[in-house]
Amino acid sequence: MEFASDNSSGAAPEIMDAVTRINAGYAPSYGTDAAMDRVRALIRETFEAPGAEVYLVATGTTANALSLACLCPPWGAVYAHAEAHVETDECGAPEFYIGGGKIARIGGRDGKLDPADLRRAIEQTPQGFVHSTQRGAVTLTNTTEAGTVYTPDEIAALTAVAKEYGLPVHLDGARFANAVVATGATPAEMTWKSGIDILSFGGTKNGCLGVEAVVMFDPAKTWEFELRRKRGGHLFSKHRYLSAQMEAYLTDGLWLRLARTANDRAATLEQAVLSVPGARLMHPREANILFAYLPRGTHRRAIRAGAHYYFWPIDQSLDGPDDEPLPARFVASWCTTEAEIGVFAQLLHG
Amino acid sequence: MEFASDNSSGAAPEIMDAVTRINAGYAPSYGTDAAMDRVRALIRETFEAPGAEVYLVATGTTANALSLACLCPPWGAVYAHAEAHVETDECGAPEFYIGGGKIARIGGRDGKLDPADLRRAIEQTPQGFVHSTQRGAVTLTNTTEAGTVYTPDEIAALTAVAKEYGLPVHLDGARFANAVVATGATPAEMTWKSGIDILSFGGTKNGCLGVEAVVMFDPAKTWEFELRRKRGGHLFSKHRYLSAQMEAYLTDGLWLRLARTANDRAATLEQAVLSVPGARLMHPREANILFAYLPRGTHRRAIRAGAHYYFWPIDQSLDGPDDEPLPARFVASWCTTEAEIGVFAQLLHG
Amino acid sequence: MEFASDNSSGAAPEIMDAVTRINAGYAPSYGTDAAMDRVRALIRETFEAPGAEVYLVATGTTANALSLACLCPPWGAVYAHAEAHVETDECGAPEFYIGGGKIARIGGRDGKLDPADLRRAIEQTPQGFVHSTQRGAVTLTNTTEAGTVYTPDEIAALTAVAKEYGLPVHLDGARFANAVVATGATPAEMTWKSGIDILSFGGTKNGCLGVEAVVMFDPAKTWEFELRRKRGGHLFSKHRYLSAQMEAYLTDGLWLRLARTANDRAATLEQAVLSVPGARLMHPREANILFAYLPRGTHRRAIRAGAHYYFWPIDQSLDGPDDEPLPARFVASWCTTEAEIGVFAQLLHG
Amino acid sequence: MEFASDNSSGAAPEIMDAVTRINAGYAPSYGTDAAMDRVRALIRETFEAPGAEVYLVATGTTANALSLACLCPPWGAVYAHAEAHVETDECGAPEFYIGGGKIARIGGRDGKLDPADLRRAIEQTPQGFVHSTQRGAVTLTNTTEAGTVYTPDEIAALTAVAKEYGLPVHLDGARFANAVVATGATPAEMTWKSGIDILSFGGTKNGCLGVEAVVMFDPAKTWEFELRRKRGGHLFSKHRYLSAQMEAYLTDGLWLRLARTANDRAATLEQAVLSVPGARLMHPREANILFAYLPRGTHRRAIRAGAHYYFWPIDQSLDGPDDEPLPARFVASWCTTEAEIGVFAQLLHG
Repeated sequence: MEFASDNSSGAAPEIMDAVTRINAGYAPSYGTDAAMDRVRALIRETFEAPGAEVYLVATGTTANALSLACLCPPWGAVYAHAEAHVETDECGAPEFYIGGGKIARIGGRDGKLDPADLRRAIEQTPQGFVHSTQRGAVTLTNTTEAGTVYTPDEIAALTAVAKEYGLPVHLDGARFANAVVATGATPAEMTWKSGIDILSFGGTKNGCLGVEAVVMFDPAKTWEFELRRKRGGHLFSKHRYLSAQMEAYLTDGLWLRLARTANDRAATLEQAVLSVPGARLMHPREANILFAYLPRGTHRRAIRAGAHYYFWPIDQSLDGPDDEPLPARFVASWCTTEAEIGVFAQLLHG
Repeated sequence: MEFASDNSSGAAPEIMDAVTRINAGYAPSYGTDAAMDRVRALIRETFEAPGAEVYLVATGTTANALSLACLCPPWGAVYAHAEAHVETDECGAPEFYIGGGKIARIGGRDGKLDPADLRRAIEQTPQGFVHSTQRGAVTLTNTTEAGTVYTPDEIAALTAVAKEYGLPVHLDGARFANAVVATGATPAEMTWKSGIDILSFGGTKNGCLGVEAVVMFDPAKTWEFELRRKRGGHLFSKHRYLSAQMEAYLTDGLWLRLARTANDRAATLEQAVLSVPGARLMHPREANILFAYLPRGTHRRAIRAGAHYYFWPIDQSLDGPDDEPLPARFVASWCTTEAEIGVFAQLLHG
Repeated sequence: MEFASDNSSGAAPEIMDAVTRINAGYAPSYGTDAAMDRVRALIRETFEAPGAEVYLVATGTTANALSLACLCPPWGAVYAHAEAHVETDECGAPEFYIGGGKIARIGGRDGKLDPADLRRAIEQTPQGFVHSTQRGAVTLTNTTEAGTVYTPDEIAALTAVAKEYGLPVHLDGARFANAVVATGATPAEMTWKSGIDILSFGGTKNGCLGVEAVVMFDPAKTWEFELRRKRGGHLFSKHRYLSAQMEAYLTDGLWLRLARTANDRAATLEQAVLSVPGARLMHPREANILFAYLPRGTHRRAIRAGAHYYFWPIDQSLDGPDDEPLPARFVASWCTTEAEIGVFAQLLHG
Repeated sequence: MEFASDNSSGAAPEIMDAVTRINAGYAPSYGTDAAMDRVRALIRETFEAPGAEVYLVATGTTANALSLACLCPPWGAVYAHAEAHVETDECGAPEFYIGGGKIARIGGRDGKLDPADLRRAIEQTPQGFVHSTQRGAVTLTNTTEAGTVYTPDEIAALTAVAKEYGLPVHLDGARFANAVVATGATPAEMTWKSGIDILSFGGTKNGCLGVEAVVMFDPAKTWEFELRRKRGGHLFSKHRYLSAQMEAYLTDGLWLRLARTANDRAATLEQAVLSVPGARLMHPREANILFAYLPRGTHRRAIRAGAHYYFWPIDQSLDGPDDEPLPARFVASWCTTEAEIGVFAQLLHG
C-alpha cells in the first residue's frame, strides 16, 4: 500500500532489461553512443518534430533548471504556478542555474494557471524599466502538481499570452505521459502544436531508473544547453545507460502503457476513497494523483495498518477528532496493483 | 582494442546484478533507502572512518564541483595541477558551483604537484589583501591525469603545506581504486591519515554504471553539501540505483579486484608498447593509464586496424614521417582483456 | 514643485563643502584615508556601538545587496515586505549577490510587516527539508516604502520572531534619518537595541551626493563584507570623497536636521493636499513621503502647471472623469521649500 | 613625494568645480540628467563614433567586469595578460559578473601581449569541445600594467587575431588618456579603428573623483549592460555627479592636458632615477608609470625621508646590502609637481 510517490516504484522490466542489454561491450561515451541516436529518432517520431533536439539528464530538477536557464536571463522572471515544483521542491535550482532570476508565483485553481492571471503577472513586471526584474519565460506543469491536466486548448491559450509578450514557454513534463493518456491528445498537440518551446519529458516517475529527456523544439540554444549540462555535472560519461532507458521507454508505446496503468489505478483509488462516508476530492482526479479529504479516523486506521501516503500539507496530526476531514495525496504508479488498492479499500472501511 | 578511456567500458557483472536485484518492490526515495545505509557503513569500514559522512552522485565532475564548493568561498583560489580534470575537463563546473573562484594552476612533472611549488603558489596569493582572490582550497588527483600515483607520504607532504596555511584539501579520486592498488596502501592511509578532508571516490570509471561517493571525513559541512547537491539537481529520487552500485562495488573488495585487473592490463600494454623500437614512456606507468611515444608508422598501422586510443595532445596528424615519435594515451579498464592486448601487440609490430 | 523623489535633490551645502575641502593634497586610497577613521568613530558614537564596523558604498542597492549576501546563503529565503525596495526596485541585485536565494514576499498594511505574518512566512519555509529553500534572513525597511515608520517596539517585535528562528535581521535605512526624526527614538534604539544586526544607513536621499554606510553591529563577517564589496566593484580608490560626505553628514547632527526639514515639509504638503475636497490619504503620513488620492482634475491642473510627482502605481491616465480619485506619491526632501509647496497648494485649488 | 599611485591624487580643480556647479537645484535621476546627454555627445565626438553608447560607473573594476560580462558567456575564457588588473587586482570581479568564466593568463614582455601568444592561447581552448571552457573574449590594457603603451598598429594586430576567431575585444583604459598622449594617436585610432569593441575609459586615476565611462562601439548589448549595471548596484540615483565629472574631463581637452602633465612628470622622474649610479629600467617608461631598479641604499634613504612608492613586487626588505638593486614602481599623476620630483632627486643622490 505505497501511495506516497511514484518515486518509490522501481523500474519497469522492459526498462531494466534494456539497461542490462546495453551493458555488453564497449560504447562511446558522453552522449555519442549509438543508442542515443536511436533515442533522438524516437523522440522526433513520437513528437512529429523532425527538427527537435534531444538531451538526456538523470533528474527532473536538472531538466527543468537547465531548460529555464536557456530561456531566461539572470535578470528575468519565470512565471510559474505558485505550487510548481520549480518553486517549491527544487531548493532554488532554477535560480542557481539562471544565475539569479525570480520565480513569479501565480495562484490558480486546481494547480492550473489561468490565461488572465498569467497576463496580469506579466503586465505587473514593468518591462524596459531598469529597476525591475524583466520578463523572462513561462513554465507550465502537465500533469500539474494538483493532479489535474491541461488540454491542448488550455495550453495554447496560455502560450498565446506568452507569445504576445515574446516569452518562451517551458513545460515541466515530469508526468507528461500521464497527461497524454488523460487527454488522449498526441504528444505533438500537447507540446509544440500548442506553443511549447522546450519540454522536460519525464521518465523517472513512470518506470525508469532515472532519466529525463529535454526536448528542444526550437534548436537555437542547443549548444548552450550542452555546455550548461556539462558544467552542471550532468553529462554522463557512460551515457548509454540513460539512452537505453529512454529507448525502451519510447519503444512500442511502453511509456503510454505504463502511464495508462498508473492513471487507471488512480481511478480505482478514487472510487475506493470516495466510497468512504464524508470523503471528498480536493481537486478533480485526472491522471495518476488523487487529492482527497478523508476523516481522521479513517486515516488513522489506514496509516497504522501500513498504508503509506502523505497528508497535504504534510504536517497534519493523527491525534484529534475522528470525523474531522484531513486532506491527503495518493499517487499511483505503473506498478500499483489492483490487489494493493483492494486491501487499502478494505482498510478504509474498517 | 579499446584503449581510449575507461569510460568506454560497461559495468561489471556484480554491479549490474546489484542494480537488477535492488529493483524489486518499493523503496524510499532521495537517499533514504536502506541500501544507502549499508553504503555508509561500508565506506566507514573501508576507510576506517566511523565519523565520515557519505553522499552519492552520478558523475565525477559533480563530486568534484560540489566538494570544492563546500571548501572554497566564491572569492577563493583552488590550487590544482595545471592538467587536473577540474581545470581542463569540467567546462568550468568548479567555478560555477563555487560561484566564481579561480583555479590556480600549478605545473608539476608527471602530473604531480611538488610541495615547494604548492607553497609558492599559495604564497603568491596575497592573503588578507582585498584586491586579490583569497586562498581557498587545495585539490589533488590520485591516480593523476598523467597516470602516476601519489604515495601516502607524498600526499601527506602536500597536505602539510595546505594545513600550514589553514587550507582544506580535496582529493579527486576518479581513479582512486587504481591508486590504492598501485601503492598497496590502505584507503585510510591514502586519504584522511594523509590529511585529505574530502574525497571524490570514483566508481564509474572502474566498473560501475555511474556513481561516485563524496566522502567527507570532516562532517562540518554535510548539510551544506546536501543542499548544494539538491539545488544542483544531483539528488536522485530513485536513489536506490546509485546505492546498489556502490554497495556491490565495496562488497568483498570488488572495487580493488576491478582496479587490479585494470592496472595489470596496463602493465601488459606497457610491455607491448615498449617492445616497439623507438618507443618510450612520457610518464612512469603506475596505474591503469599509459602515456608513450610511438613512431607515427606504428600508430598508423594500429589505428587503421581499428585500435582506439587518443594522441596526447589529441590533435596530431597521421600524415608525416613514419619514424617521428608521437605521444599517445592508452587506458586499460577492469574489462580490458589480455587477448585484446595480444592482438594489439601484434599490430604494433606490423 | 519637485515632489517625485528625494533623489532629485542635490547635496546639502555642508556636504558639498566637505567634499571640496577633502580634495586638497594626497590621501591614502581604498578606505584607508583618515576621514574614514573619523567616520567610523562618528558612527560608533552616533549608534552607541563601540564594536560596530562600518563600510561605505555609493548606492543603496549596493548596501542592501552586500548586506544580505553576508546574512543569507545561496539557498536561503530573505523575508521581506512585498513592496520592499529589495524586491521591487533592485533588478534582482540581492539574488545576484546572494548567488541565488529567494525573496519571500510578505504582505502587510501600510508597508509594514506584522510579526504574525512574518512568523507564518518563516514557518512555511520547511527548514531542514532539502527540497526547499531554507530560512535565510529577515529584512525590514524604515522609513517604509509606504512612508510609514516602525517604532523601536515594532522593530523589536519583528526581530524577536526572527531571533526565535535564529535568523539575522537587516534594516534597509535608505530613509533611516526620517524614521529617527519621526519617532524621536535614538539611532541605537532604532537598530541594535531593537535587534537589528546590520544596517544600510542612507545618506544619498537625505542631502549627500552618493554615500551609504553599512553598519555591522556584529563584526563576525566584516572581512567577508570587504571581499564582497571589492569583487562587486564597490571599493572606491579615491575613497576620501565618500568619507567626507559621511563625516559631514554625521557632524553636529546635520543628518537629523536635513531629515527634520524633509519631514516637516511633507507635513505641510499633507495639509495642502488634504485641503482639496475629496482628497484622502492612502497611508498615514509619518515621515517625508505622502501617499494620497486626489481628484483627476486636480492632478491634471497641477501636472500641466509643472508639478512633478508620480501616480502610484505609476501608470494612471490623465484622461478621464475629473472627480475620479487617483493615488499619487509626493516626496519631500531636505531642500523642499515652503515656497514651492505654497505654489503647489494654490495650484491644487485652481 | 607621493609616487605610490595616481589614486592618491585628488581631483583636478576643473572637475571639482563642475561637481560643485551641477549641485544647484533639482535634476532627474538614474542617468536621465541633462549633463549625461552632453557627456554622450562629447564621447561620440571625442571618439568620432556617432553610434557609440556610453554609460558611467564609479570604479574601474566595475567598468571592466560589466563590460566583460556583456562579452563573455559564463562558460567562456577571457584572454588577458597575466599581469592584467582584471586578473590580479579585482578579487575575482570579472568571474563574479560573468557568472563563472576563466581568465586565460598569457605572459608577455613589458606587460604587452604578443599576437602569436594570443593566438596560441586561443588555439589551446578546444572550441566546440563540451568538456572545456569555450573561447569568450579578449581584454587588453592600455596603458599597460607595466607602464608601456600599445600603438594602434599593435592593438590592431591583436584584435585581428581575436576577430579571426570571432572574439570581441575589451580595452581596459584606466589610464587610456596617458596612452593617447604617449602615442599621439587619436582616441578613435586607439580604439574602434583598431578593432576595440568596448572600452573602459578611465577618469578616476587622471583627475576625477571617481568616474569611468564604458563606451560601447557596438550598441548591440546596451540594454543588457544597463540591466547588469543596475543589478550590480552601479546605477547612481544622483547620477549628475558622475556626469559632471565626465563632462568637465572631456571639455577643452582637459583629460589630455592632465595626462600630459602626468606623463611629463614621469619623464622627469625617469631622468632623476636613472641618474643614480646602478639604476636601470625594468620596462621602457612610456606613459606615467616608471619601473626601475635602484640600489637598496638609495631606496632606504628616500623612503626614510618620506618618499612614498611601492617595491615591485611589493614585499622587499629595506634590510640588506646597500648596493643590491631592488625593483620599484613610481607613478606620476596630473598633480605631481616638478618641485616634488626635485626634492626626491636630491634625496636619491644623498
